[in-house]
Amino acid sequence: MTDLNDLSLSEVSDLLDAGEISAVELVEANLRAIEATEPVIHAYARILADEALAAAGRADAEIAAGDRRGPLHGVPIGIKDNIYTRGVVTESGSQVMAGFVPDYDATCVKNLKAVGAIIMGKVQCHEFALGSNAPPTRSPWNLDAYPGGSSIGSGAAVTSRSSFGALGTDTGGSIRVPSSINNLVGMKASFGRVSIYGVVPVAWSLDHVGPMTRRVKDNALLLAGMAGHDPKDPTSAKEPVPDYCADLEAGVAGLRIGVERDYFFYDGLQSEIRESVEAVIAEYQQLGAEIVEISLPELEITQDALFTIVLSECSTYHRKLIRESSDKYDPATRAIVQLGELVPATHYLAAQQARSLYHNAINSAFSAHRLNAMLWPTMPIATAPLDQLYATRADGYPDTPVGSMCHHTFNANLAGLPALTVPCGITSAGLPFGFQLTGRAFDEAMVYRIAYAYEREHDWHLRKAPAIEGL
Amino acid sequence: MTDLNDLSLSEVSDLLDAGEISAVELVEANLRAIEATEPVIHAYARILADEALAAAGRADAEIAAGDRRGPLHGVPIGIKDNIYTRGVVTESGSQVMAGFVPDYDATCVKNLKAVGAIIMGKVQCHEFALGSNAPPTRSPWNLDAYPGGSSIGSGAAVTSRSSFGALGTDTGGSIRVPSSINNLVGMKASFGRVSIYGVVPVAWSLDHVGPMTRRVKDNALLLAGMAGHDPKDPTSAKEPVPDYCADLEAGVAGLRIGVERDYFFYDGLQSEIRESVEAVIAEYQQLGAEIVEISLPELEITQDALFTIVLSECSTYHRKLIRESSDKYDPATRAIVQLGELVPATHYLAAQQARSLYHNAINSAFSAHRLNAMLWPTMPIATAPLDQLYATRADGYPDTPVGSMCHHTFNANLAGLPALTVPCGITSAGLPFGFQLTGRAFDEAMVYRIAYAYEREHDWHLRKAPAIEGL
Repeated sequence: MTDLNDLSLSEVSDLLDAGEISAVELVEANLRAIEATEPVIHAYARILADEALAAAGRADAEIAAGDRRGPLHGVPIGIKDNIYTRGVVTESGSQVMAGFVPDYDATCVKNLKAVGAIIMGKVQCHEFALGSNAPPTRSPWNLDAYPGGSSIGSGAAVTSRSSFGALGTDTGGSIRVPSSINNLVGMKASFGRVSIYGVVPVAWSLDHVGPMTRRVKDNALLLAGMAGHDPKDPTSAKEPVPDYCADLEAGVAGLRIGVERDYFFYDGLQSEIRESVEAVIAEYQQLGAEIVEISLPELEITQDALFTIVLSECSTYHRKLIRESSDKYDPATRAIVQLGELVPATHYLAAQQARSLYHNAINSAFSAHRLNAMLWPTMPIATAPLDQLYATRADGYPDTPVGSMCHHTFNANLAGLPALTVPCGITSAGLPFGFQLTGRAFDEAMVYRIAYAYEREHDWHLRKAPAIEGL
Repeated sequence: MTDLNDLSLSEVSDLLDAGEISAVELVEANLRAIEATEPVIHAYARILADEALAAAGRADAEIAAGDRRGPLHGVPIGIKDNIYTRGVVTESGSQVMAGFVPDYDATCVKNLKAVGAIIMGKVQCHEFALGSNAPPTRSPWNLDAYPGGSSIGSGAAVTSRSSFGALGTDTGGSIRVPSSINNLVGMKASFGRVSIYGVVPVAWSLDHVGPMTRRVKDNALLLAGMAGHDPKDPTSAKEPVPDYCADLEAGVAGLRIGVERDYFFYDGLQSEIRESVEAVIAEYQQLGAEIVEISLPELEITQDALFTIVLSECSTYHRKLIRESSDKYDPATRAIVQLGELVPATHYLAAQQARSLYHNAINSAFSAHRLNAMLWPTMPIATAPLDQLYATRADGYPDTPVGSMCHHTFNANLAGLPALTVPCGITSAGLPFGFQLTGRAFDEAMVYRIAYAYEREHDWHLRKAPAIEGL
């Protein structure tokens, strides 16, 4: 018999719908995977076994009564530990927040609970989603490799089959990077699409919360359960949320996909990733899409702009905390927060102006070339050994692995555009990577549709992470 | 025969409509006033006599052909010199911009030209609308008194009867303060109501452009000619612009007007102004309005928040200019710009957070008390002698006149709410002052309606400034 944990979120949702399995069985299956993998992987910060079983029992009764509230009803998921959950310890991976119990749910959690999703537990994250400290989490792909951050537990749990999906947060790439590293699908939707009310800020003008799953359809279902306008979040958009699955199978014939090569296919792009992503591009062309070469020189300003904004906003958020609890921060996190105090307001505002410039440039490129999406690698490298993150890259390119990791992701935070990573390969060293689709503002549906057209031709999602084989 | 210059904007508009006067006659009348008063008052930076006469000729032909485009068609007005006018030298009161000729119109100017208004000239302003330098402009009320800034020429021209109305800009009070000082009606509308595209920024998150006129209806007509969504201004609002005159005469019976006393009626409020504004409040009560005492302790944070934001944004705007032309700035302006370079980003962002707090507090007060407007003095003092601006106030209150002038105005810039000053008195020293009405966001119509109910019972607008008598 198939292990339920090997099924994807949308598959177990269909089985729940058909009455063939119960929510309690799903939670029990996840608990078995947790028992087997957690002693090695440490994806979870807190496992809510009793609460999840109780919620599953209620869900089963509701579903049995013919009241299934949607495709997430009865499906257990993990929540990153910097997202408020009412009554549950939420520490944002930091000693500063030790024992902190929010008295309300983040809106994304509230929305998911409202459609019947079950909270399996809180998953690990780097300190305040910005630290370079090391949570105990290990990569299911290679215990000595970096599992990707800052949504480190989200990636590890979904990969370990101890969760069908998890929420991550992404200020410069923290959903897409661990998704790419873990052979997962990860979405940073449009800025304003998912409320960030109740999500501990890194930098509020760049922060996003979004789904990490094994497959594209899973991701679309999970995003739909979180998205929508929230009056409690002043940055929340009023754009209506469409049915992300309606056109999922419509294919890519006649669609126009932009490819920028100067920045994204630079010398620092690892050759195996280059070849695989070129193959993805060729495949889209064969599937009927038109590939459009585009120029976007403004990409060069995105890195400085992002870091200046992150440092400034993050230090502002931590002003009171660091005054009161400086000694409880990990030294590396504290250094980042203190560094931000030195940024002049004029530099911050100039960075926001640079961001507007980039925002206008990429949106103009979408319009001028009538593009449906843009495509490039999610990361220029696969992940690196844990002890080599700050060393020069193994391929000799003059950058560190940690410096390269977000090189391809932060532009989407600056532009506020939807960006999805989709698995498309595993290096000869056994490390997965993905390609990234960037869409027009609020057109996540098109991004999912294009991703799905590739995914259905491949079976990357069936590849199991070797470090958990036999656990 | 009445001097046309003594009529208000709406009166000459009606006469144009009736065919009793021509636009050329209006421009000629303004030119006569300019000839008489400018050698003393210096309200104008550039007089566009030929251009205005030519435009008036065209307007007369159009009106004669039955094609009057609205109440501003054929009416000459003045434009503050920090507002772009295509083909016309626009120096923002600064040597840095000497001889600069924009190749496009600010959207507000473009809108006014589109409805047929005639540009009589560019009126003086303090350097970049922030300097404390002294333009040559003198007050028509008292040649030794400060005429109010930074829309110094706007106030002086409309008061000198050399203009029927003028555009000012207002980042902390620069429309309302010179209006109050000059016995004029001045409106800083809701943030986003009037496009600031083509207006040289002081601090873009606080900047407004708006009308200064002799009477309330004049002001409503001039605002209507400027207002509306502008895709070129990212801060421009999409709120529709109503007919500001539709309910102008509806009176105040049953309306609710909030009055806050701790901050606005503080010890630093000059006694003659206090008595007059109390009389205004009593009069509104007699006219049927309900006066509601409100508390708004968050007002205490507005001054620091505003100055921090102004310094930061203004220094960011001037970064390139001051690097290239530092020696051309007036020393006082240069000091402000350089001071802004020292503000940390965290302080800027904390100031924006304080601003949000105030914004929420005043909007909550509007809702909780179901208010139609709030009312307080426009300034706590009348103006002061030019040589006493930085001295301790004449009444001994421990502040400088220049420090007191904007004390009552900058909160409306932080909140982005419409705020109108209406003349309501002249001190025993012969210096005019006004009261200020603050409305709900985008409800300028209600503010005008309440102002009109007071204005029609009084004749402050008939009082002529003594320094121009006989000129």
